[in-house]
Amino acid sequence: MRIARYSIADEVAFGVVENDGQDDYVSRIAGHPFTGIQFTGERHPLVDVRLLAPILPSKVVCVGRNYAEHAKEFGNEVPEEPVLFLKPSTSVVGHNDPVIYPPLSERVDFEGELAVVIGRLCREVPAEKAGDVIFGYTIGNDVTARDLQRKDGQWTRGKGFDTFCPLGPWITTGADPADLALTTSVDGELRQSGRTSQLIHDVPALVAYISQVMTLLPGDVILTGTPAGVGPLEVGQQVSVSIESLGTLTNRVVTRD
Amino acid sequence: MRIARYSIADEVAFGVVENDGQDDYVSRIAGHPFTGIQFTGERHPLVDVRLLAPILPSKVVCVGRNYAEHAKEFGNEVPEEPVLFLKPSTSVVGHNDPVIYPPLSERVDFEGELAVVIGRLCREVPAEKAGDVIFGYTIGNDVTARDLQRKDGQWTRGKGFDTFCPLGPWITTGADPADLALTTSVDGELRQSGRTSQLIHDVPALVAYISQVMTLLPGDVILTGTPAGVGPLEVGQQVSVSIESLGTLTNRVVTRD
Repeated sequence: MRIARYSIADEVAFGVVENDGQDDYVSRIAGHPFTGIQFTGERHPLVDVRLLAPILPSKVVCVGRNYAEHAKEFGNEVPEEPVLFLKPSTSVVGHNDPVIYPPLSERVDFEGELAVVIGRLCREVPAEKAGDVIFGYTIGNDVTARDLQRKDGQWTRGKGFDTFCPLGPWITTGADPADLALTTSVDGELRQSGRTSQLIHDVPALVAYISQVMTLLPGDVILTGTPAGVGPLEVGQQVSVSIESLGTLTNRVVTRD
Repeated sequence: MRIARYSIADEVAFGVVENDGQDDYVSRIAGHPFTGIQFTGERHPLVDVRLLAPILPSKVVCVGRNYAEHAKEFGNEVPEEPVLFLKPSTSVVGHNDPVIYPPLSERVDFEGELAVVIGRLCREVPAEKAGDVIFGYTIGNDVTARDLQRKDGQWTRGKGFDTFCPLGPWITTGADPADLALTTSVDGELRQSGRTSQLIHDVPALVAYISQVMTLLPGDVILTGTPAGVGPLEVGQQVSVSIESLGTLTNRVVTRD
């Protein structure tokens, strides 16, 4: 099932994205999707709604250097344990929202990633039970001001700017995250190509590792790391991250006026 | 004015802590305090309520190495710009709540800090206007698993455990943060003693710096850094951080059963 968060007229709602054999529709659900899907009967063509970030997470927990080829491209060792960092919730935007190039940076990179959406409050989840606490999967772009990341040592500033965490276009439930193709392209040109089977620490291992440290809440997001091929974005460019069976997340880079 | 968040019976509310010349009382206010104080008429002796974290922030933005003597005690240079990191909102607890010593760590340190509470949505705030967006001040303890902080490089795991961000006992509005005495004691023994005038980057500078990167929301908290004298906590010990005119934040270290 594909669950979107959208606005139409002045209302914001969650809905299920369905195809009637010809067109995509979004069928509105009551409240939020974590405690069950109840349709309201309201339905809109997908093209008529504005997709929003599919969830507003209380936290976005990210994993660095989780694909060996990406760790190597910056000359880093592959870490034995996942490297964790956080992106602030204010960095989250949705599909087709602009990514704002901050005046403080001269090097802003894309990082296409598989994003895990947590479905219920949990802590100390064993890896073999991770599936029980996962609501679904979406696509993330861990946009990074590479120059500031390097200068600061801590990654919070370089990765924490407003609009630096595109998520979307929707959450897909029931997917198997073990071996999905992931590609990132810039203005249509392929830049990253990997498979989630190349994750050093897979999704169940990450849920177990992170939930040993911090309680995860419904809607919290785990960004699982990016494959090799990251590179710079310029103002005006359009970046698209596609994951097999999850869709495509597209954002354009702009300057703030 | 001192604004607390508290529970009594099954209710949670904000209230103003006042003294009638003899005892402390908390006078309940309607809703939250950011849009103005409206008393409901309900009043309780302070000893009858349970104080909670005075705010549940959407984010806790922390500043590392912001007192020169503390930077030196770990052999670090004093950074030209503030070093930012985030603590997850799930790490926040209140006055008298337990700090849980995580089994993953063998070295958990206290770090007493001045905490700034933001009062309204803001970004790119000039330092000279920082006062306009600050709601008040409270006390924070940036509890840190020092061994994991050192091992990981990124500080998120070492500083992100549940209960690792005590805040409280209440928010004080109208205080001048420029030169307040700050002390931390463990089981009554003085361990840290500094003044906020020793901050390398003062409160207005921090608000300006952070809000250039990320939008701040009402209730967001900035932890301004810790003075020299940080050190380890053992299970069973009680740690108290006191700041002149703001009060004392006390927490006991326990193991999770």
